[in-house]
Amino acid sequence: MNLTHPFEDADGDKLREECGIFGVLGARDAAAMTALGLHALQHRGQEAVGITSFDGQEFYSRRGIGHVAANFSSGQALAELPGMMAAGHVRYSTTGGSGLRNVQPLFADLAAGGFAIAHNGNISNAMTLKRDLVNKGAIFQSTSDTEVIIHLVATSRYPTLLDRFVDALRLVEGAYSLICMTPEGMIACRDPLGIRPLVMGKMGDAVVFASETVALDVVGADFVREVQPGELVHVTLDGRISSHRPFGSPAARPCIFEHVYFSRPDSVMGGRSVYEVRKAIGMELAKESVVDADLVIPVPDSGVPAALGYAQQSGIPFELGIIRSHYVGRTFIQPSDGARNADVKRKHNANRALVAGKRIVLIDDSIVRGTTSLKIVQMMREAGASEVHFRVASPPTEHSCFYGVDTPERSKLLAARMDVNAMAKFIQADSLAFVSIDGLYRAVGEAARSSGSPQYCDACFTGDYPTRLTDLLERESAAGQLSLPVEKVA
Amino acid sequence: MNLTHPFEDADGDKLREECGIFGVLGARDAAAMTALGLHALQHRGQEAVGITSFDGQEFYSRRGIGHVAANFSSGQALAELPGMMAAGHVRYSTTGGSGLRNVQPLFADLAAGGFAIAHNGNISNAMTLKRDLVNKGAIFQSTSDTEVIIHLVATSRYPTLLDRFVDALRLVEGAYSLICMTPEGMIACRDPLGIRPLVMGKMGDAVVFASETVALDVVGADFVREVQPGELVHVTLDGRISSHRPFGSPAARPCIFEHVYFSRPDSVMGGRSVYEVRKAIGMELAKESVVDADLVIPVPDSGVPAALGYAQQSGIPFELGIIRSHYVGRTFIQPSDGARNADVKRKHNANRALVAGKRIVLIDDSIVRGTTSLKIVQMMREAGASEVHFRVASPPTEHSCFYGVDTPERSKLLAARMDVNAMAKFIQADSLAFVSIDGLYRAVGEAARSSGSPQYCDACFTGDYPTRLTDLLERESAAGQLSLPVEKVA
Amino acid sequence: MNLTHPFEDADGDKLREECGIFGVLGARDAAAMTALGLHALQHRGQEAVGITSFDGQEFYSRRGIGHVAANFSSGQALAELPGMMAAGHVRYSTTGGSGLRNVQPLFADLAAGGFAIAHNGNISNAMTLKRDLVNKGAIFQSTSDTEVIIHLVATSRYPTLLDRFVDALRLVEGAYSLICMTPEGMIACRDPLGIRPLVMGKMGDAVVFASETVALDVVGADFVREVQPGELVHVTLDGRISSHRPFGSPAARPCIFEHVYFSRPDSVMGGRSVYEVRKAIGMELAKESVVDADLVIPVPDSGVPAALGYAQQSGIPFELGIIRSHYVGRTFIQPSDGARNADVKRKHNANRALVAGKRIVLIDDSIVRGTTSLKIVQMMREAGASEVHFRVASPPTEHSCFYGVDTPERSKLLAARMDVNAMAKFIQADSLAFVSIDGLYRAVGEAARSSGSPQYCDACFTGDYPTRLTDLLERESAAGQLSLPVEKVA
Amino acid sequence: MNLTHPFEDADGDKLREECGIFGVLGARDAAAMTALGLHALQHRGQEAVGITSFDGQEFYSRRGIGHVAANFSSGQALAELPGMMAAGHVRYSTTGGSGLRNVQPLFADLAAGGFAIAHNGNISNAMTLKRDLVNKGAIFQSTSDTEVIIHLVATSRYPTLLDRFVDALRLVEGAYSLICMTPEGMIACRDPLGIRPLVMGKMGDAVVFASETVALDVVGADFVREVQPGELVHVTLDGRISSHRPFGSPAARPCIFEHVYFSRPDSVMGGRSVYEVRKAIGMELAKESVVDADLVIPVPDSGVPAALGYAQQSGIPFELGIIRSHYVGRTFIQPSDGARNADVKRKHNANRALVAGKRIVLIDDSIVRGTTSLKIVQMMREAGASEVHFRVASPPTEHSCFYGVDTPERSKLLAARMDVNAMAKFIQADSLAFVSIDGLYRAVGEAARSSGSPQYCDACFTGDYPTRLTDLLERESAAGQLSLPVEKVA
Repeated sequence: MNLTHPFEDADGDKLREECGIFGVLGARDAAAMTALGLHALQHRGQEAVGITSFDGQEFYSRRGIGHVAANFSSGQALAELPGMMAAGHVRYSTTGGSGLRNVQPLFADLAAGGFAIAHNGNISNAMTLKRDLVNKGAIFQSTSDTEVIIHLVATSRYPTLLDRFVDALRLVEGAYSLICMTPEGMIACRDPLGIRPLVMGKMGDAVVFASETVALDVVGADFVREVQPGELVHVTLDGRISSHRPFGSPAARPCIFEHVYFSRPDSVMGGRSVYEVRKAIGMELAKESVVDADLVIPVPDSGVPAALGYAQQSGIPFELGIIRSHYVGRTFIQPSDGARNADVKRKHNANRALVAGKRIVLIDDSIVRGTTSLKIVQMMREAGASEVHFRVASPPTEHSCFYGVDTPERSKLLAARMDVNAMAKFIQADSLAFVSIDGLYRAVGEAARSSGSPQYCDACFTGDYPTRLTDLLERESAAGQLSLPVEKVA
Repeated sequence: MNLTHPFEDADGDKLREECGIFGVLGARDAAAMTALGLHALQHRGQEAVGITSFDGQEFYSRRGIGHVAANFSSGQALAELPGMMAAGHVRYSTTGGSGLRNVQPLFADLAAGGFAIAHNGNISNAMTLKRDLVNKGAIFQSTSDTEVIIHLVATSRYPTLLDRFVDALRLVEGAYSLICMTPEGMIACRDPLGIRPLVMGKMGDAVVFASETVALDVVGADFVREVQPGELVHVTLDGRISSHRPFGSPAARPCIFEHVYFSRPDSVMGGRSVYEVRKAIGMELAKESVVDADLVIPVPDSGVPAALGYAQQSGIPFELGIIRSHYVGRTFIQPSDGARNADVKRKHNANRALVAGKRIVLIDDSIVRGTTSLKIVQMMREAGASEVHFRVASPPTEHSCFYGVDTPERSKLLAARMDVNAMAKFIQADSLAFVSIDGLYRAVGEAARSSGSPQYCDACFTGDYPTRLTDLLERESAAGQLSLPVEKVA
Repeated sequence: MNLTHPFEDADGDKLREECGIFGVLGARDAAAMTALGLHALQHRGQEAVGITSFDGQEFYSRRGIGHVAANFSSGQALAELPGMMAAGHVRYSTTGGSGLRNVQPLFADLAAGGFAIAHNGNISNAMTLKRDLVNKGAIFQSTSDTEVIIHLVATSRYPTLLDRFVDALRLVEGAYSLICMTPEGMIACRDPLGIRPLVMGKMGDAVVFASETVALDVVGADFVREVQPGELVHVTLDGRISSHRPFGSPAARPCIFEHVYFSRPDSVMGGRSVYEVRKAIGMELAKESVVDADLVIPVPDSGVPAALGYAQQSGIPFELGIIRSHYVGRTFIQPSDGARNADVKRKHNANRALVAGKRIVLIDDSIVRGTTSLKIVQMMREAGASEVHFRVASPPTEHSCFYGVDTPERSKLLAARMDVNAMAKFIQADSLAFVSIDGLYRAVGEAARSSGSPQYCDACFTGDYPTRLTDLLERESAAGQLSLPVEKVA
Repeated sequence: MNLTHPFEDADGDKLREECGIFGVLGARDAAAMTALGLHALQHRGQEAVGITSFDGQEFYSRRGIGHVAANFSSGQALAELPGMMAAGHVRYSTTGGSGLRNVQPLFADLAAGGFAIAHNGNISNAMTLKRDLVNKGAIFQSTSDTEVIIHLVATSRYPTLLDRFVDALRLVEGAYSLICMTPEGMIACRDPLGIRPLVMGKMGDAVVFASETVALDVVGADFVREVQPGELVHVTLDGRISSHRPFGSPAARPCIFEHVYFSRPDSVMGGRSVYEVRKAIGMELAKESVVDADLVIPVPDSGVPAALGYAQQSGIPFELGIIRSHYVGRTFIQPSDGARNADVKRKHNANRALVAGKRIVLIDDSIVRGTTSLKIVQMMREAGASEVHFRVASPPTEHSCFYGVDTPERSKLLAARMDVNAMAKFIQADSLAFVSIDGLYRAVGEAARSSGSPQYCDACFTGDYPTRLTDLLERESAAGQLSLPVEKVA
């Protein structure tokens, strides 16, 4: 969600969803409920968290670096956030002095009243819009793309906050699921393509919005429906709910990677259990790329459901051949004597007694840079596995995401640099296979990918971006070059 | 390991191993290796950690509250711990001002030189010994039972530190696996019954000791053998290893609960894979207590291996019906509106789409107080399970442990208060069964429990304590009563 | 400097200058020099400090709560502030979450470039200006009155930053000494009346600005001249200095209380040594209100110079009858047994052996609420003084200040509530006298106060405010009442 | 008070008293009163503070690094210290990991009950005693000499704690004023020579002990008398007071430097006002070393009383020619440009307007290394003083102290290296004079120093140490050399 180039933050070997949002209106302990809801969405952003509440008179904000539990579990922290309406945000953030200023919800005192905003996604023309606003005298307090929306609201000529907000969104391009608060109530909306998720729930008279259904479960709310792509739901302080469609009805293209990896397996998304979809991907994979082996072993934890599907479909026993430590924190200083790959071992350890002498199939959700996959394969061989086959529950990840996901620069993506054979060699696997793009679409219930009008945003696999990428184009044209296709090694 | 009454600290619903220890001699980065080894033993003690090193001249210590990664991952922290010999300790500790003083390794400057000690276990006559020592002028700096050993060493009349140490151990009763350091080298030893584990490894010229084999794996050391019950292994600074048997050769009785729950599944203990033993317990359980059901669901994470065994034996599919959050920290403030059982839900959430309408078998490793089991059963029913059967991969836990495990007071143990039928009612399960004591012994490779001379310490299941409990008897006789058997509810 | 009502923060028994500012251009270690200069101005603001630097490309900021030494003495802190131009600010601040946002220098990225501002004074129409700006879409990040200037600069239609800045100042009313930084250089200016001080110095090629000359002394700079009331001095990055007079040449009215109390005695202000002026006030006081006594005793530390003057003029010996502790921190918990007035005693203790049986004259710089004066008189009596006469080195403080000084609400000012006799009774002194307003003017070198066009701002003594007080008038008219004169007790 | 060599810690240019102690028995808020009392003694030790209390059942301790106000001003801190008996300690300490373990009061659970001890002074045979104790099996927890006393008490064969304590003290050599607590009550005692001070006060039924009378003033207690040299005062929990003289009645030799510098001017010591004694030293100095000058200027703050005495005796006016900043914290990074002597200037600044063109007499309490004196003289010259004469209110400090004062190694003492003429040249003064040793004795009310049996410990001036220095002799004999006289430069 930063204006900083999305390539520059990525150093991990997983794509990272960058935000989770939660809001509630009409609950006596709105902030406590928001803290609980954000805790359930912590996998969507672990580095910073903020909550803003409204008590009918004033807005209150509290932000922190770190986990929800570390910042919002004390009674004192919650006592600073009175009122029956609250919204919150978890995010990945870059560290440093300016850190707290970028933690959401962002808040501003506008002439029309207080305005708080929590955003999941990324605005792909934010830099261009910011430059225009600054030229007109706007003063930015953060480096977040989200602040652009606030200034557009502040300078809109429309009379009401709701109209100003719609006016602002018409100028904005990219992916956004938003939860906003005004002195009149709460606004939840999704961009016209519905790239990032947003669901609506109810608990008694209270209305709840959240990135995933699991947050409804944890607070005890009932799922009502998804906020529709391009829909804006307005809930007034006294509980009246209205739905608006300012952008007409374009065809939706929600992110398919939410099913593959980002969302929790116990969430339901687009009407389907994420767990069941992941098992179905594993089954498709077993059908497409069966192998003669003794054990199916998931790369924990994200590979587990697909591995169960693969095992059930193939009849090869599912076993825990890799044990994951729950105590993963900062990287340790590597002892100079021995301890090869200690860093991967402190997270994952081979279950040697099980693996020794066996032919195994490893199942993972995706391959990004490939460095971790390589270490895992090596660890299995050191533990005595006689054959190591690698199966991936998504197609090759060849393209960067510009819609709120932290992806490495394209040239760092293994699948952008190599074909499947070269990748297999790189990770030292005896064989490697990915589920096909149509296999993935089948797992989410489609017959196949509709190439003319794809049902999902699958740009990371296909390069087919559903919106313009204004800031990127401008950066590249300023640099005197377009982003050229990366040439693959075979 | 505290002298405080073992009943008073327990508030959780799991028994808790109270310590893990690690030591290395002859490695260039001994402290860094120790940090890595302790990290792999973090499940044995999460609340405090200490490392002491020796550089041939001086001993250096650093202690901290919290995880290993939080205290020992910085280069600066490790730079404070130079030398090629180091030992460390992780523990559960009571919080408060005196906290750091109880964090091990304990260290003292004795007339014979520096002496550092790390202890896993509990000395069951520590209070009695301490009273005698204080009467002779000893001044204790901690409330730890381990300090008793140091004072016994300090006041022994024998000339060498090794002789003084053996002299001290002869007075001590209970469970202890110890790693000590002197200016001459490292001593590793286990009490005559070998109640708590201790293994020995090698990495090049370096000698390594650890509570579990997984710590050897992580640092890249090779497993050599277990330190034998009643054995004292002495390694000099120049690497000469000698083995001593000061207590003769009594029959060993290692703790069987290490196999059930304490140890990591990827450890090998007593020559057996912990993972395979747990699967075997699940298989025994399936043989003893089969049930007609649709899904086998583990209570994560400790119930997973037994559930796999149960599923493979019974043919009922293994599925993840409960999703565990990795972001468990402090307890949250409960919102007053709704959110029933939010506290259990923020750790475990039902995979509703999977469970709804199904007959399920839940597998857990043990039942202590039963409160969590009840919540889990309720969560499954709220998610729509039509039948909920509960199977436990250990016999009923009826007795407290006095050998370094944090157990609730006996009257809080569900199995001490109720028979199995009453327990089933209490946790609201449709049926409840425990593996039999002989089934458990079969899973660890015995034909059955040898009642005359049991092969393991199983006092928590049988009440058959393998040592005297001097402090406990004295406390009870001081209180004018013996601990009476708790009367069970049927 | 807050927009918050100036009455609401005052709880002490001294008026408090609210800010000190310092800037330097052309020095290799500009930030280190600024830290040292601010340290010398710490008496003008002890609760927060900030420094902003510019290295020719970027602006860098660092802010902290607490003293300069606590925030800016480390090499690391200064390494964050590279460049040859820097400016800083010390302030009194209200504590709380928003604290850091109000710490100056404030900084904004304007279309015309970066703009940093440090302000000593108070804008008396800030609320009115802010309301207009917010109506036009401006978003404020702080509650500081100073931010109004930045938004006026951002929205000005003039082309250059310097013109925009003058355009902004024309709208502003009240007291301001400002140090600003732009990518072109540094601007220092004083409001047309020159209410708050600002001096200019030189050190080699570097140009320095500071609230008081003592900051020049400490960094080793030579005093050049005062920035004149209504003058704007612009220094470009390459060192060219130009002087501007955008407001013509109104008659100046600098704050006379700077001489009485705010400035350090080793500063030179308006061409006069502050120390010598304070001694001269003491001499005038001795001429006007002599008394037959044994000892002249200052209330430390601010009463010392006037007491020396009083002693030299009257011939009564100067003695330290009150010892001040240097270790004053947070208030202590009062023991319930005895310890009457322990709170004043931990700051000031009677020199009993000296005072017992003596007739003493106490000299203090001013009386605000009178509560401390009462405790000091009582302490002297308890120590055995036979007579206690009180002499004050300023006229009665009857009116609040709206120009950047933290004054209690008028009804809390002792001199607003009582005449001199009643005040003497209140503080339990045998006699009480204040220097006359003309005596004070004589001490600063005037023949007398020129009532038609006073040479100084002395509104706190006379109620003669030299500017409009727009925000105050609006607040009072909104409250349906004007601030009525307080009726005095005789 | 550390066993570390006293030479190694000193880096300042003042001798530093190393401890202050306070105790109270019979007050409802004993700990709060102790905090207040220690705050008044903060000048005796600024780096660490501890308080121990007793509520009739248990002892409670709290220790901290830093000032009393920072550690003991909160209600929560004091709530941890219940009971009607408490004692506390302020100290200079070396920083580092072991820091808190050396913070007093030290406490131990002895067989005879809890025992807490707070010590001002230094035991000059502590290392020798410690070696013997360790050989017998004692385990030390701190590096403080004070812990030796506890172990001697613990291992004494006498039956009662009081007898054991006297038994222990008989083995101890050096300086000690002690406040101890046992379950029976409080013991206050001074070594046979009474080197360090200790006074006794009363407040209602409560008994109070403190290093100086000023602590009695601040808590509101009345001064009763000094604890006599060699006296042990025992107060039982029910308030009975008994006096013991276990060492007979040797001639006392209290530290004369307490009058010169250590004690607060508002304390009364040995029956004399410290302030009056310091003024009297100044008068003696004026008689012995008059000079023709315009102004008498104290080096603040410790030179002020002697300067007043000098001015009153000589008739030369007393003026504040040096202004001291109250905001002295950590050292600042020196800017590379100019700012010569910025470090001394941030503490002391010349009052230029006063000093320029004047002949001045500077008065300071003592000269240790001479480095600060040099900077002060230079500062006065830079400010324009035409002549700078230096007068010192103590004889030349030629010898180190081994009785609880932090002195530089002898070779660093300016007066040990140079005669007075060479010292004058070193500090660049036009003239330099010290008060004579007899002048100093006259100021404290003696006719002259009695060379056969001096009335005070004045070893720092004369080298005449009143006790054996066992540890020092042993160290020097181990090093194969005795501390030779330093040869002086003329």
